[in-house]
Amino acid sequence: MTSGKLLVTGAWIDRARLESLERLGLRLRRPSHVLTEEELEHELKGAVAYLHGGEERATAAALLSAKETLKVVAFVGVGYESFVDVAAADDLDIVVTSTPGAARDSVATFTVAQIINTNWQIVQQLGNRYPDWDNPDELPHELSARKIGIVGMGTIGTRIAEILRQAFGAKVGYYSRTRKEILEKELDLEYQPLRELVAWSDILVVMVPGNEKTKYMIDAGILAEARKGTILINTARPSVVDPEALYTSMEEGRISLAVFDGFYPKDSEAAARLLEDFGGRLLVTGHIASHTREAMDRMVNQAVRSIENVLNGLTDPYAVGARSDRLPEARESSP
Amino acid sequence: MTSGKLLVTGAWIDRARLESLERLGLRLRRPSHVLTEEELEHELKGAVAYLHGGEERATAAALLSAKETLKVVAFVGVGYESFVDVAAADDLDIVVTSTPGAARDSVATFTVAQIINTNWQIVQQLGNRYPDWDNPDELPHELSARKIGIVGMGTIGTRIAEILRQAFGAKVGYYSRTRKEILEKELDLEYQPLRELVAWSDILVVMVPGNEKTKYMIDAGILAEARKGTILINTARPSVVDPEALYTSMEEGRISLAVFDGFYPKDSEAAARLLEDFGGRLLVTGHIASHTREAMDRMVNQAVRSIENVLNGLTDPYAVGARSDRLPEARESSP
Repeated sequence: MTSGKLLVTGAWIDRARLESLERLGLRLRRPSHVLTEEELEHELKGAVAYLHGGEERATAAALLSAKETLKVVAFVGVGYESFVDVAAADDLDIVVTSTPGAARDSVATFTVAQIINTNWQIVQQLGNRYPDWDNPDELPHELSARKIGIVGMGTIGTRIAEILRQAFGAKVGYYSRTRKEILEKELDLEYQPLRELVAWSDILVVMVPGNEKTKYMIDAGILAEARKGTILINTARPSVVDPEALYTSMEEGRISLAVFDGFYPKDSEAAARLLEDFGGRLLVTGHIASHTREAMDRMVNQAVRSIENVLNGLTDPYAVGARSDRLPEARESSP
Repeated sequence: MTSGKLLVTGAWIDRARLESLERLGLRLRRPSHVLTEEELEHELKGAVAYLHGGEERATAAALLSAKETLKVVAFVGVGYESFVDVAAADDLDIVVTSTPGAARDSVATFTVAQIINTNWQIVQQLGNRYPDWDNPDELPHELSARKIGIVGMGTIGTRIAEILRQAFGAKVGYYSRTRKEILEKELDLEYQPLRELVAWSDILVVMVPGNEKTKYMIDAGILAEARKGTILINTARPSVVDPEALYTSMEEGRISLAVFDGFYPKDSEAAARLLEDFGGRLLVTGHIASHTREAMDRMVNQAVRSIENVLNGLTDPYAVGARSDRLPEARESSP
């Protein structure tokens, strides 16, 4: 039996899913609003476990306030780097976990729909009761005649490649930090260096984790390789694509249409210019790809299991930071 | 060698694809505009073959004017019933052919995207930079947790079922005039009578040919079986769904969203009311699902081969009407 406080943030989390932790002897504490750093410091005092499903920032100071008791911060989702100071947690011997893979099918399915939407220009065609019959050159290609480049071949990238190859017969190329030779053979994928992949692709799909290393990975130099009319699908974090570079490439017509699920910060001037000047060529949704009930349930269940593992003294497969025993590539399953 | 006139309508058809017919000895005649009935009568005089890729109506009178010479009318597409008087052609011993199957992958891919679009409400979410985090009950389900009912299990319906089962793991039920027991086992599909299927489905996909028999097949009685919030995807011909019945079911909330690729005639009052009162819940495109370059090429090639077959005295597998040697079900590959 474990005693002590369990802090759970995120009002959307169903209490029934926390029962196994309560049965362990943990006392549930659920604040009802987004905590400030000061409030979080207060709430964390005496906590042994912290299930992070909210919008608060677990800073070094907040973690420090719980250093005597806190064993584990289980982040619900994959973008933990913006919400938890993992380096500080490592120093304090607090395990941080995340929930990679839980939203794989949701994000892959959403991304495939956006690929088809942009290929047929379905959104732009809505409300046109009669197509333009006189312009056969404007007709879309079948997916089997499209070259689709995937940047990042983690859990979600792999799922997207599977669907595109197996269900639609598209030609799929990819770039990844490490080659996946078994997968290449299995799915008949073509590995290409990033610049070559961008030049090759009719449709470019970005699916790498959002972090400091991938920030503006798709920059002006990379986008300059794109042929005219290339479609860009970014259902990873927006920060992977440099918005200034995207502006230029949309102005030049290299990028004809761009998809984002989640967009740049509201105060970003580059983002505002993109929306103002190319709004009709941008399909922006608010980070909804991963937000299905099943994916969210899976994330919470996975976070709960991680807490159980850590409190039971087991190694958790989803630990991040210094405690991660996995290759970075294996965690490449953002957003 | 065959001599005589080959009438080709549809300005979009690439001349290179007609070369094999010219090599047969046929003289190509390509009017540049949509022909009236009178003009068609004139153009058909002396023609031995007629490749119908345009918008003109091959009426009994027009066909009669060519009865001495005309052997074959090859319709490019599947909705020939609105464009060629097949009964009159049968009486005159003129073979009529169509091009089923050619647009299978295009229509299936487009339909799958619209299923995902409506499931996530992607179109409605466009421009919302931040999702509504407080409403977990509003979250979409993963496709693997959705029951998708397909009405019509012809070439395209089968392809849609394959993609939904194999790529996305959705639960798929179907209704068809004849059961497909092998397919049921292969894909783990559930056959259900039409009313039961409608009541069972979260998402109902209509994929039957548009003709007199299927007109308003989805009527008030059928739609009354739908549970609240059912999504209706009609990428077959609009006439398969009774617009008055659809209006009532959208008013009642049984149908929450409806997709059409091609809509009712512009002078339809029921259609105007649907657009006016439920425009935001209707995703209407102008019959674009089948219009990819590859599908159009395939259709023209198939029509050319049908003409060759008939002129060479062979039985054509794509003959329709009295000359069809196929079961009606096998041709169920609209739109």
